[in-house]
Amino acid sequence: MQNVLNYLFADAEALYADARYCMLGGPFDGTTSYRPGTRFGPRAIRDVSYNFEPYIPVYDLDLDQVPICDLGDLDLPVVSEEAVAMVAEAIADLIRDRKIPIFFGGEHTLTVGAVRAVKPDWFVVCDAHLDLREEYRGAVYNHGCTSRLVYNEGTTNIVMIGQRSGTREQYEFAKELILYSSDQVRRDGIGVVLDEVQQTIGDQGVYLSIDADAIDCCYTPGLGTPEPFGLTPYDLREVVTRLAPQAVGFDYVEVCPTDDGQTAAVATELIRLFIAAHWSARRAGTD
Amino acid sequence: MQNVLNYLFADAEALYADARYCMLGGPFDGTTSYRPGTRFGPRAIRDVSYNFEPYIPVYDLDLDQVPICDLGDLDLPVVSEEAVAMVAEAIADLIRDRKIPIFFGGEHTLTVGAVRAVKPDWFVVCDAHLDLREEYRGAVYNHGCTSRLVYNEGTTNIVMIGQRSGTREQYEFAKELILYSSDQVRRDGIGVVLDEVQQTIGDQGVYLSIDADAIDCCYTPGLGTPEPFGLTPYDLREVVTRLAPQAVGFDYVEVCPTDDGQTAAVATELIRLFIAAHWSARRAGTD
Amino acid sequence: MQNVLNYLFADAEALYADARYCMLGGPFDGTTSYRPGTRFGPRAIRDVSYNFEPYIPVYDLDLDQVPICDLGDLDLPVVSEEAVAMVAEAIADLIRDRKIPIFFGGEHTLTVGAVRAVKPDWFVVCDAHLDLREEYRGAVYNHGCTSRLVYNEGTTNIVMIGQRSGTREQYEFAKELILYSSDQVRRDGIGVVLDEVQQTIGDQGVYLSIDADAIDCCYTPGLGTPEPFGLTPYDLREVVTRLAPQAVGFDYVEVCPTDDGQTAAVATELIRLFIAAHWSARRAGTD
Amino acid sequence: MQNVLNYLFADAEALYADARYCMLGGPFDGTTSYRPGTRFGPRAIRDVSYNFEPYIPVYDLDLDQVPICDLGDLDLPVVSEEAVAMVAEAIADLIRDRKIPIFFGGEHTLTVGAVRAVKPDWFVVCDAHLDLREEYRGAVYNHGCTSRLVYNEGTTNIVMIGQRSGTREQYEFAKELILYSSDQVRRDGIGVVLDEVQQTIGDQGVYLSIDADAIDCCYTPGLGTPEPFGLTPYDLREVVTRLAPQAVGFDYVEVCPTDDGQTAAVATELIRLFIAAHWSARRAGTD
Amino acid sequence: MQNVLNYLFADAEALYADARYCMLGGPFDGTTSYRPGTRFGPRAIRDVSYNFEPYIPVYDLDLDQVPICDLGDLDLPVVSEEAVAMVAEAIADLIRDRKIPIFFGGEHTLTVGAVRAVKPDWFVVCDAHLDLREEYRGAVYNHGCTSRLVYNEGTTNIVMIGQRSGTREQYEFAKELILYSSDQVRRDGIGVVLDEVQQTIGDQGVYLSIDADAIDCCYTPGLGTPEPFGLTPYDLREVVTRLAPQAVGFDYVEVCPTDDGQTAAVATELIRLFIAAHWSARRAGTD
Amino acid sequence: MQNVLNYLFADAEALYADARYCMLGGPFDGTTSYRPGTRFGPRAIRDVSYNFEPYIPVYDLDLDQVPICDLGDLDLPVVSEEAVAMVAEAIADLIRDRKIPIFFGGEHTLTVGAVRAVKPDWFVVCDAHLDLREEYRGAVYNHGCTSRLVYNEGTTNIVMIGQRSGTREQYEFAKELILYSSDQVRRDGIGVVLDEVQQTIGDQGVYLSIDADAIDCCYTPGLGTPEPFGLTPYDLREVVTRLAPQAVGFDYVEVCPTDDGQTAAVATELIRLFIAAHWSARRAGTD
Ligand SMILES: [Mn+2]
Ligand SMILES: [Mn+2]
Ligand SMILES: [Mn+2]
Ligand SMILES: [Mn+2]
Ligand SMILES: [Mn+2]
Ligand SMILES: [Mn+2]
Ligand SMILES: [Mn+2]
Ligand SMILES: [Mn+2]
Ligand SMILES: [Mn+2]
Ligand SMILES: [Mn+2]
Ligand SMILES: [Mn+2]
Ligand SMILES: [Mn+2]
Repeated sequence: MQNVLNYLFADAEALYADARYCMLGGPFDGTTSYRPGTRFGPRAIRDVSYNFEPYIPVYDLDLDQVPICDLGDLDLPVVSEEAVAMVAEAIADLIRDRKIPIFFGGEHTLTVGAVRAVKPDWFVVCDAHLDLREEYRGAVYNHGCTSRLVYNEGTTNIVMIGQRSGTREQYEFAKELILYSSDQVRRDGIGVVLDEVQQTIGDQGVYLSIDADAIDCCYTPGLGTPEPFGLTPYDLREVVTRLAPQAVGFDYVEVCPTDDGQTAAVATELIRLFIAAHWSARRAGTD
Repeated sequence: MQNVLNYLFADAEALYADARYCMLGGPFDGTTSYRPGTRFGPRAIRDVSYNFEPYIPVYDLDLDQVPICDLGDLDLPVVSEEAVAMVAEAIADLIRDRKIPIFFGGEHTLTVGAVRAVKPDWFVVCDAHLDLREEYRGAVYNHGCTSRLVYNEGTTNIVMIGQRSGTREQYEFAKELILYSSDQVRRDGIGVVLDEVQQTIGDQGVYLSIDADAIDCCYTPGLGTPEPFGLTPYDLREVVTRLAPQAVGFDYVEVCPTDDGQTAAVATELIRLFIAAHWSARRAGTD
Repeated sequence: MQNVLNYLFADAEALYADARYCMLGGPFDGTTSYRPGTRFGPRAIRDVSYNFEPYIPVYDLDLDQVPICDLGDLDLPVVSEEAVAMVAEAIADLIRDRKIPIFFGGEHTLTVGAVRAVKPDWFVVCDAHLDLREEYRGAVYNHGCTSRLVYNEGTTNIVMIGQRSGTREQYEFAKELILYSSDQVRRDGIGVVLDEVQQTIGDQGVYLSIDADAIDCCYTPGLGTPEPFGLTPYDLREVVTRLAPQAVGFDYVEVCPTDDGQTAAVATELIRLFIAAHWSARRAGTD
Repeated sequence: MQNVLNYLFADAEALYADARYCMLGGPFDGTTSYRPGTRFGPRAIRDVSYNFEPYIPVYDLDLDQVPICDLGDLDLPVVSEEAVAMVAEAIADLIRDRKIPIFFGGEHTLTVGAVRAVKPDWFVVCDAHLDLREEYRGAVYNHGCTSRLVYNEGTTNIVMIGQRSGTREQYEFAKELILYSSDQVRRDGIGVVLDEVQQTIGDQGVYLSIDADAIDCCYTPGLGTPEPFGLTPYDLREVVTRLAPQAVGFDYVEVCPTDDGQTAAVATELIRLFIAAHWSARRAGTD
Repeated sequence: MQNVLNYLFADAEALYADARYCMLGGPFDGTTSYRPGTRFGPRAIRDVSYNFEPYIPVYDLDLDQVPICDLGDLDLPVVSEEAVAMVAEAIADLIRDRKIPIFFGGEHTLTVGAVRAVKPDWFVVCDAHLDLREEYRGAVYNHGCTSRLVYNEGTTNIVMIGQRSGTREQYEFAKELILYSSDQVRRDGIGVVLDEVQQTIGDQGVYLSIDADAIDCCYTPGLGTPEPFGLTPYDLREVVTRLAPQAVGFDYVEVCPTDDGQTAAVATELIRLFIAAHWSARRAGTD
Repeated sequence: MQNVLNYLFADAEALYADARYCMLGGPFDGTTSYRPGTRFGPRAIRDVSYNFEPYIPVYDLDLDQVPICDLGDLDLPVVSEEAVAMVAEAIADLIRDRKIPIFFGGEHTLTVGAVRAVKPDWFVVCDAHLDLREEYRGAVYNHGCTSRLVYNEGTTNIVMIGQRSGTREQYEFAKELILYSSDQVRRDGIGVVLDEVQQTIGDQGVYLSIDADAIDCCYTPGLGTPEPFGLTPYDLREVVTRLAPQAVGFDYVEVCPTDDGQTAAVATELIRLFIAAHWSARRAGTD
């Protein structure tokens, strides 16, 4: 039977074996502190993917010509530590098979599993929050501890962009890392910030993690822990398209689709641009 | 990779070749007159299917032990007549392969395609509306014309249950058919009504079509054309479980998921009970 | 230009001069204590009127053949006492012109103005609340004082159906009136209750006021002050159709359209049935 | 300063020392499997409490004359086992101080802590689900394991009312308990069922736990795991008012306020009736 | 009766005969591909018109002093080609009577009918999408074909502003037209772009069509096909006020009021500014 | 019992006697003209306060170390004049006790009571609307009259920032006041505007009133009377932090939480920054 649709990411039509990019969702929000619902993030991202054309003019690229597959969602347990372990295992499979993982959250905690599997040179994270707690509300594997866990598990090269919320202790710890607050990005311009970032990291491999709340909640209010005075979607577009070529893993997490769809629309367009930017760069090279 | 979920109907885990029941969605609402959104009906039905246990106590049956497959959604064109034709073609494939089609709407118009393919002895339709117009708002293939189209295409044995809305002309035409209004069901009891229906149709094959608005909109308000003073979910449960054993096709249409999920929950539970009742009856026989 | 629609009640196509029934809305919710929004009630009632067919089978009547006009909404001031006065003046115009007023709320307070103009023999009110306060939250013209104001302004023949909430003082005062609580209606049946009511009031003129919260909030949750354990829509249908023939005024108030449309759908169908029942009775007589 | 309101339960105006009834909320939904949001249940219950009059006519009782206090919400950790422990500790304090605990969920798992503290003779639970799993999605302290945990922790006298969903294994285990399914309640009437229950338990102490999803989701759709074909609000009113006099603890859990408020309205009215029924019975006695 | 309101555009109080500006709505969304609901656009625009003051300070103009009438909505058929024909006929009447048509969508397809009637020198269209398909989902009269249909019907002078989505083929075709993408507007400034546009078109007559999705969906998410990285409301204000003086027709389409009202608020304010700018310019001249 | 939460503002943990800042809510929306719901503003502000960390990096300040108390909400009558009087009385108590009042609306009318009690040298008001009517819809104490009432009651030193809507008469009256429209702020920059403002008012005491609709409704759509083309959240942050040090009273009104929470999030963050800026300035001085 022809003309049958499933609900997976539009234009992700490659077989696993042929795919360069593998999408995977983690519908988990078990440690959410404020507003639950990021478990529906992967579905919202996939739904709105059908709203977009395959063609991406700035890259002169048809996404349905890129070898992408969408594996669906992991069926995660309720204990966050075990959910992270399952993500780590799944992403490790992808890395072993030389895929670029494209992970959709779900809460930010799951990123820890992906980074554990990818073992990147650098962890670049856009977020409203420092996520540098040692523990939060009785759990170590908590969305408020993401970047700290990444650090503690060995990826200590961390660049943070857009952060504007944290405890005094977290700000203290952040001094060991490279931090560009949203106010600093606003003042200096994202271009200048990214020039600096790229000078720092050179051409090393980057795991790029986007917490949707990096963007100002006035632009994209569908968030579990909304913060105003944040990045613009344009800032994030610049981050994604400039760092994609050297990325070895990518996630977009914390989409909580309780708004009118704009948060997922931005996420999905940035996921598409990540792939387009990465693929265009590699095509030109020897990948 | 294990533990990966898609968004298809829960427990519909059979391969097409092995399946006795084949689910298919038609996300189409192009002729909707009042409130659009039934295009999201198939997704809502599948979503809430994960809310239910595989086990159905009254039939002592685990649904994941029944050979069901879910093919996903048809990618339908915007012209209703062509959408009906595509449904007819798809359902004809299923009939040829000796499957019981389980179709999810989308608007009621699509039922015409399914009935065209199934060619049942009887068409039993639960609906708030007569759907007996010759034409509506400039289109013959319109949700207000469903039962008339079924009749005109040759299935003239029609039993209608729950209707309470129509024009004078439609009520005139309905005199040629068998009609149990929702008030009559309320007065006599659905058991008595179904006794009569079963005496009329004997053991002939039935295509059973459930327009979600058959149920009173105070119970299930997620509808494109809501009507109060309708059937109860219990009435519909009785219809579905008593007629399922002789059904040769089934659809549940017009779920418009703008409510808090109750309309899709009832639909999905009735779809599950249809399968359980049909399978339990056939297991006992020689099917 | 043909084929142009406004947003007034469907099938209310008579000119004022020719009309027997005149609809008027009062989009006012200034004294609402719990959830605001009944100001949008008249619009919701008119919107859903387009969902229904003109033909009403039980009366074998096409509503577009009945002389109904819809005047739109009053532009009411924010002070409740003045809003009531403006309603009284407008309804007085209708009475003078020998129309049957069909008033849509807005909050129940406005009913006081309508009753003031109509001067009926009896006031029959379906409501969850006694509305018998002398004053509420600093205002005498408050939705919690409706029936008391009606009484104080001289209509002391009051029948209350469906009430289940009030203060001790209100219940004390209610002893002077005729009260059928929702539990009593449930126990005895609405038929028995209405037999009693009709014996009491004989063929005298009735102003019938329906506060939408008379119905159990589990059936129709779009209410400013929702109460469970109330009347069913069927109870209210019986009240409306049996009392309509002797009604000299009618209102349906307190629809707060924050739900999925079921509260307005029931209201609108009952408004239609009120007219059908009244018109059918009068046609047979000498009206 | 006079006239200042907080957001605690209306009419719960007693000091802790004077209170006979102590309300406490548990805004936790960490193991929710389908739709999150029961964390907002306690707030929704308190909000709608202001919608009701203090006076309860059937008991001729003013609730603000009953010694009730509302302690607010526990600040629970994210790990379910620890959340249960914190509930147990808090309820133990109340029991020590000879209060009747009135607990608002949050998810059903928390009930285990309350029962652990209360140590009742009988556990009577109204629920759509058996909640008899040994473990669910990697956690023992999971909302799908509530009744099993109660049993395993030593309260083996369990009466279940309204259940209609479970695995084959759970139904097997349920044979050791007393179970009245919603279909059985519908067939026999809740009065007959409660006669039997009361004969069984005599005048022993009861912990009464109401999972909001015991009620049919067509009446109250604001639920984390909605199930149709359930109890009516009237069934539950009968359970609550008949068992309240012998209750030693009470909870109302799993209110997920994503609907138009009807689920919380029913919950709150039943909480009020529980107190009224308990207090009225005790006043007559020697309590 | 005084003080009676209808639901038509606020301050549109002229009689048809006296009106210079005639508003007309087209509640049609039959070919919508992603999210339906633009059928409710005209109503949302009119509703929010009551939120604004008649006085427009920048033009020192009271809108209720401008001769505007609002005719209501066309009662359109479900077949898009016929709906377009009905729009064409209605707008032709307005043109014949020397009115400036102000059309509210509904989906963009209807614009084709308006342009067919107006026969402008230039078609200036703000949109996220190229709308240059020859056919889409089985229909030629589809919202994805609007600008192509306008071109094919003879208005080949087309300026496109804000576009950022289309297929490769559409971008190819667009080379024959004048296109300013949203990124180009962002880079150069809308002032510079409009200087160029005005040099190109001189003082020729313009039909100005605003597809609401021209604006970035982070500002106005109430859209059928939302796209981020778009124009700002300020960009659109500049387009509307600078081109209004030479406009011979205007529409604002694709408002899908599923958001919190901001999309309709922007639309309505721009419709008001269009009229104010057009009227102010003509008053100064000889019109 | 430890770990018990109420619903008051997070980190407002001081006793009244010790507090420097006293929060108070006024859940009143009785004169609202367009969309009701600002009565829920205080609750929305408090709810989202739990979303933020106590630590405010730019001030290097932990909010839970600042002496703040939250008194809850006034229980206001329905007549606006009396509600204003009750606010005036309550705020007078705070002023007498040398607290800085932090008032949450509710509609803007209530501000009149606060200003009456505070008797500031200057009234600085950010708003979309002039609020300079003498009377509106039959009431003098109306949200459309706020600034006029403040003026009439004797505070004639008024600075208005962000206004863009009013009648011709109001704009006439505004010539006596100092007005920076939102377009002017956009053109000149908020920094320049505030330099001018501060030169004008010197170090005199300021009552700062923020009507949430000062911000463009595309950023924060949760408003009773939304207006596009307004201030940005950054503009308002500049106003609040620069004027806080000389403020003697502060309110944030007209939050109508019908959006996805962004309007309340911005309000709450600005309330936090007001306190941080005020406290930081005074700590440095002799306060
Ligand atoms: Mn994060
Ligand atoms: Mn974050
Ligand atoms: Mn139908
Ligand atoms: Mn139907
Ligand atoms: Mn009432
Ligand atoms: Mn009432
Ligand atoms: Mn349970
Ligand atoms: Mn349950
Ligand atoms: Mn378009
Ligand atoms: Mn478009
Ligand atoms: Mn204001
Ligand atoms: Mn304002």
